[in-house]
Amino acid sequence: MTGRSYSLHEIARLFGGEIEGDSGFEVRRVATLENAAPDSIAFLANARYLQQLKATRAGAVIVGQSSRGATRLPRIVCANPYAYFARVSALFNPTPAARPGVHPAAVVDASARVARDAEIGPCAVIERGANIGASCAIGAGCFIGEGVAIGSGSRLYANVTVYHGCEIGSGVVLHSGVVIGADGFGLAPDEGRWIKVPQVGRVRIGNDVEIGANTTVDRGAIDDTVIEDGVKLDNQIQIGHNVRIGAHTVIAGCTGIAGSARIGRHCRIGGAAGIAGHITIADGVDISGFTMVTKSINRPGAYTGGYVFEPHREWLRNAAQLRHLAELAQRVRALEKRGTKPQKRSKP
Amino acid sequence: MTGRSYSLHEIARLFGGEIEGDSGFEVRRVATLENAAPDSIAFLANARYLQQLKATRAGAVIVGQSSRGATRLPRIVCANPYAYFARVSALFNPTPAARPGVHPAAVVDASARVARDAEIGPCAVIERGANIGASCAIGAGCFIGEGVAIGSGSRLYANVTVYHGCEIGSGVVLHSGVVIGADGFGLAPDEGRWIKVPQVGRVRIGNDVEIGANTTVDRGAIDDTVIEDGVKLDNQIQIGHNVRIGAHTVIAGCTGIAGSARIGRHCRIGGAAGIAGHITIADGVDISGFTMVTKSINRPGAYTGGYVFEPHREWLRNAAQLRHLAELAQRVRALEKRGTKPQKRSKP
Amino acid sequence: MTGRSYSLHEIARLFGGEIEGDSGFEVRRVATLENAAPDSIAFLANARYLQQLKATRAGAVIVGQSSRGATRLPRIVCANPYAYFARVSALFNPTPAARPGVHPAAVVDASARVARDAEIGPCAVIERGANIGASCAIGAGCFIGEGVAIGSGSRLYANVTVYHGCEIGSGVVLHSGVVIGADGFGLAPDEGRWIKVPQVGRVRIGNDVEIGANTTVDRGAIDDTVIEDGVKLDNQIQIGHNVRIGAHTVIAGCTGIAGSARIGRHCRIGGAAGIAGHITIADGVDISGFTMVTKSINRPGAYTGGYVFEPHREWLRNAAQLRHLAELAQRVRALEKRGTKPQKRSKP
Repeated sequence: MTGRSYSLHEIARLFGGEIEGDSGFEVRRVATLENAAPDSIAFLANARYLQQLKATRAGAVIVGQSSRGATRLPRIVCANPYAYFARVSALFNPTPAARPGVHPAAVVDASARVARDAEIGPCAVIERGANIGASCAIGAGCFIGEGVAIGSGSRLYANVTVYHGCEIGSGVVLHSGVVIGADGFGLAPDEGRWIKVPQVGRVRIGNDVEIGANTTVDRGAIDDTVIEDGVKLDNQIQIGHNVRIGAHTVIAGCTGIAGSARIGRHCRIGGAAGIAGHITIADGVDISGFTMVTKSINRPGAYTGGYVFEPHREWLRNAAQLRHLAELAQRVRALEKRGTKPQKRSKP
Repeated sequence: MTGRSYSLHEIARLFGGEIEGDSGFEVRRVATLENAAPDSIAFLANARYLQQLKATRAGAVIVGQSSRGATRLPRIVCANPYAYFARVSALFNPTPAARPGVHPAAVVDASARVARDAEIGPCAVIERGANIGASCAIGAGCFIGEGVAIGSGSRLYANVTVYHGCEIGSGVVLHSGVVIGADGFGLAPDEGRWIKVPQVGRVRIGNDVEIGANTTVDRGAIDDTVIEDGVKLDNQIQIGHNVRIGAHTVIAGCTGIAGSARIGRHCRIGGAAGIAGHITIADGVDISGFTMVTKSINRPGAYTGGYVFEPHREWLRNAAQLRHLAELAQRVRALEKRGTKPQKRSKP
Repeated sequence: MTGRSYSLHEIARLFGGEIEGDSGFEVRRVATLENAAPDSIAFLANARYLQQLKATRAGAVIVGQSSRGATRLPRIVCANPYAYFARVSALFNPTPAARPGVHPAAVVDASARVARDAEIGPCAVIERGANIGASCAIGAGCFIGEGVAIGSGSRLYANVTVYHGCEIGSGVVLHSGVVIGADGFGLAPDEGRWIKVPQVGRVRIGNDVEIGANTTVDRGAIDDTVIEDGVKLDNQIQIGHNVRIGAHTVIAGCTGIAGSARIGRHCRIGGAAGIAGHITIADGVDISGFTMVTKSINRPGAYTGGYVFEPHREWLRNAAQLRHLAELAQRVRALEKRGTKPQKRSKP
């Protein structure tokens, strides 16, 4: 936190919106409606939390047009309360700037170029010919391979690994445990054994991309794996070789994208989903969590494929029928046919 | 291993149970029934391994009341053979104590407090204001962020990352690759782009928690993410921001828990399960592996939702029917109606 | 890349195959059909890319017998174009050899044995009694626990963790973030709490195994976890304690294998699959991605269990029927019975 306060007036001058009530109210922090203290500003983005708005101890709130009258607290009325709140929160909780300098316990190759105002943490290793841009922060224990280029203002938290030759844009955030550019899973079968296909492509990551903890993005087999601008990846996602993810697509945790899949722009993919290799997903597609996508999707829209849960005993009975579905459908067809012609009766 | 032996008599004095046969038998190690040597003690916790009991070369065994007569080997009879075995195994295989001292290749900020008998491994980094409790062992290459507090007797294996401000209790074990406190996946859509919502909560982990390799627990968006006492998490689990996991709940590997889900106490969640965001799971709920839980569960019990496997050819035929289930149900309804009133026949 | 070129004649002398067209054509690099430059050799392994063969700018290609006449480019005709290409690519892109020596920022215990021509990267930590074989490369930030043995010619990329006592064969590749030998998930329930069962087995990994980024292989509870020769594991796979994976089996990313499962040789397991604990999979079994295997499979063949996806609206209607499948099957049975005896009509 910054420690200083901002009046509603100051906030609205920075981010727009309309003030109702005391515009001089001084905000010291952001909070949830539920746990707010009186010096806090909270927000309401969804009508189902209206009860929490009634009960909140927050000193001020951010609301949409339709909830303008739902409280008497000093408030900022705006079109998109959640995005507005994100901006206000960043005002009170700015990302710490890089602390320029190379820590004495870092190991930086003489041929690497590190911007003067970049921060290189202890036990970070920067290999031959790597290039670390202005204002970057490279966390403790990171490994930046030979020839890697990282644009300005990017932040790698502790213990990130970037293999040789990969390119990372500006304003990128990589969380701990991320591995960029490990070999893709390229194997040729040959008389009962598997021959490794050298993975000689790179990973190219655009600007303003954020990648969550322990997510892995494999290097391309021959051509590159590409993550376009503004993509946001959650934790523990696996991106196979030669995948391309279109700009401003978001993917929730634990999802796997197999090799050479092409995901469009502005897609939203839920957690623990799976995208098969070599398929194409159009722009603007939403895929539910736990959905396995085995064929290309050419039209925007929402797609789902998960199995619904139920008490275990009922599942036992119902799931057993899955193995007889084709037969069941045939039996229904037979019944339908039987109805349309004179039935054979056991006795007339 | 400790190297010394214990007689059955000594073991029973420590952990209770009743000895049948030679109480002076000296045990030197624990083993499975299948691979035991004559100086070993093994255990039988499940009647389906009775054949292995007959064939074992173990010198002694731990059995339940019902198997008291199933062997002539010297044996300890007790209520819970598996828990008893766990205690005996810990006797022979104690966790190594911390080796007090800060390794010269560790990097500890001057303002951090490290207990005198704590161990800080090589290339570990302890940031400003962090607090490492008595008898802790912090492995090689760990990163402990600014202001982190770790209770006494906790062990972090090599290459664990704990972000700033997180709190970890006493007797906690974190395995390699664990990431505690990375940013939650908080994004506000704004005109086709995604604005980051600063993640300013922390992670609070109770006492006696164990977390498996490469598991990630995200910090809260505003309030904290909480893992209560005695929780056991397996490898490669993803815990989203603001999740709360109740005391003594166990979760198997590869499971994902989305943001703001609340899991009760004494739950057991199978591997590769998924829990949707913002739902509540009651105390004492069992969830099978591979199950996607999309709604709150208010009653204890067992719940399942996975798709059963079969030979690929049969799956092709059966799974194709899934897309026609609603229609099939309608056709069955039509057939039922047809039966209850005079049928139209093609020809009378 | 090596920088030097090879003629088709030289390549065929090394790897066999038959040349059609100009055998003196000099190849400088490998490429995809789609993005090849005129100094490149590409390959066609699948007839569905014949259009790309027609349009390619590659100077030479590798094709199978059946595509011998599909191009006029200089070409090598062989039985297995993809495996052939893998070998040619390795010719142009050899794995860099270890750079012998221990980096001054590495921390190697005095009792560890490191082969003279092995490479130990900066901030790597080699513990007491470990043994690093000839020509091994241990990347920056790796942790090699007490008593670990690694055979010759193995390569650990940056930030790999190997717990104490594990054994790794020759020619093994471990990618960044891999954790070998963390404790298995062994817990005994005891009056509402969980007692840890000490995990005293090891992990033993054979020769020519490759393990992808952030994959975890747990140590055995009592006996060992075993990965046999030639196994290839993709990224983010979880292998539980006491699992055995047979030689030359390949497993795609995000798959989880629960404790004590035994997987045969020459199996192929798709991404995000799950194998339950204590079951056995025969040699030569193929399991599709996203499939949950809950029972042993005794015969080779292909097995599948995933739910097919569809537009969300249709899924809502169809998936709702899953919870009524057993009832639906009963209703169909009732209709069938009704047909075989005189029907009750509402009016005669």
